[in-house]
Amino acid sequence: MGELRVRSVLVTGANRGIGLGLVQHLLGLPNPPEWVFAACRDPKGQRAQELQNLASKHPNLVIVPLEVTDPASIKAAAASVGERLKDSGLNLLINNAGIGNNSSLDNVTPEDLAQMYATNTIGPLLLSQAFLPLLKKAAQGSPGSGLSCSKAAIINMSSYAGSIQDIYVWEYGQAISYRCSKAALNMLTKCQSLAYREHGILCAAFHPGWVITDMGGTIEDKTRVTVDVSVRGMLKVMSSLSEKDTGTFLDWEGKVLPW
Amino acid sequence: MGELRVRSVLVTGANRGIGLGLVQHLLGLPNPPEWVFAACRDPKGQRAQELQNLASKHPNLVIVPLEVTDPASIKAAAASVGERLKDSGLNLLINNAGIGNNSSLDNVTPEDLAQMYATNTIGPLLLSQAFLPLLKKAAQGSPGSGLSCSKAAIINMSSYAGSIQDIYVWEYGQAISYRCSKAALNMLTKCQSLAYREHGILCAAFHPGWVITDMGGTIEDKTRVTVDVSVRGMLKVMSSLSEKDTGTFLDWEGKVLPW
Repeated sequence: MGELRVRSVLVTGANRGIGLGLVQHLLGLPNPPEWVFAACRDPKGQRAQELQNLASKHPNLVIVPLEVTDPASIKAAAASVGERLKDSGLNLLINNAGIGNNSSLDNVTPEDLAQMYATNTIGPLLLSQAFLPLLKKAAQGSPGSGLSCSKAAIINMSSYAGSIQDIYVWEYGQAISYRCSKAALNMLTKCQSLAYREHGILCAAFHPGWVITDMGGTIEDKTRVTVDVSVRGMLKVMSSLSEKDTGTFLDWEGKVLPW
Repeated sequence: MGELRVRSVLVTGANRGIGLGLVQHLLGLPNPPEWVFAACRDPKGQRAQELQNLASKHPNLVIVPLEVTDPASIKAAAASVGERLKDSGLNLLINNAGIGNNSSLDNVTPEDLAQMYATNTIGPLLLSQAFLPLLKKAAQGSPGSGLSCSKAAIINMSSYAGSIQDIYVWEYGQAISYRCSKAALNMLTKCQSLAYREHGILCAAFHPGWVITDMGGTIEDKTRVTVDVSVRGMLKVMSSLSEKDTGTFLDWEGKVLPW
């Protein structure tokens, strides 16, 4: 596996955690993208400070305001990205924004379930709808008939916790609303892979590892990984994806996970 | 496999289609349940006419008003069922109520996705929460340490269309919101099986077949089954379930399906 080479990429939830790590590593690639679009809810806010610092040093980084549960915000983001890209299309959409908690069957509420689904499942679907014209354009503008992340791809940041077969780290928590939303996101990914193959767009779900972030919490476990290790691994895996990988569920080391 | 023997059972979405078929077959068993609770949105309405006719002939059939997207309605239903059962508990909860459509990635809306999730996924979760005390009571009141539908069980009516691995009948429609809600329901079922095993409650997801109903539509395909065949098959499968089957995904003939 080599380094990822991609002309343009958009990362959602880019102001911290895995999203920020992806942006940092993309900017530091030997051949960095011409455009890195870093989407987050409040680009001018305190929590986007690191992203602002990066933007002051990297003219190829564009911070885009985006609230993934707001269809109008998604449309505005797609329009603004489209204007920047002019005629070239978007190669890679990384649906990374997500929320989590550790609700149990006993205490989970309908509001929690609906909110988690809106952010973790409906959000990525709406993003993909809105950016589809730009992804198609990128695919049409790329040579060759195969699929790849350099050409056009949707990467949905899922979680091994969304595996129905394996029910990852159940001993640490039921996380019901989270697991259900990620299982649904995996289904979405598989459907997108079937529907978008003909448009030349690769689609895959990723498990980033149980990453040490604000959201991932502080539980100690031998399987935990740093943002750096996770992001470096995922970008390498993305660089290697081809036709045969569309519609799969992969971890940060490229291992195929069961649904 | 013998006939299902169960003292009390509740079926949601019981006024037509598969739900009505389940109620009819349960009432017609050689040893019918002492209590069949048939839940539907509008028990007095025109669409519940067949259920009303059945109730006039079967004193063990109780029609219960229930709107599965309304937590207050669910609580009221659990209270009313609890009063009827007095100290004996509920053996079998069949979460059958559900909705479907054939929305595609292109035209599916956030409202459709949220509504489908509320009915097909959140609904069964809330039902199971509300009826958990009655299910536990039934398990405690049953002899033996194993699991069975005669003792205490939650059956979630899923669909093979919820299988991420196989993406059943994709050629007939993307049914995005439906597939995502059923994949999430499958995840819920697996989690329930892990959490409720210690309470003596068996949990399984069923694919009823592609049944000829109002919801199932009129497409002709060699795999289609009648309500009668589907329901007869599922009740036989339920009668045979034991410890080893909790947390599985089964079709109306007892075949294990992949997640």
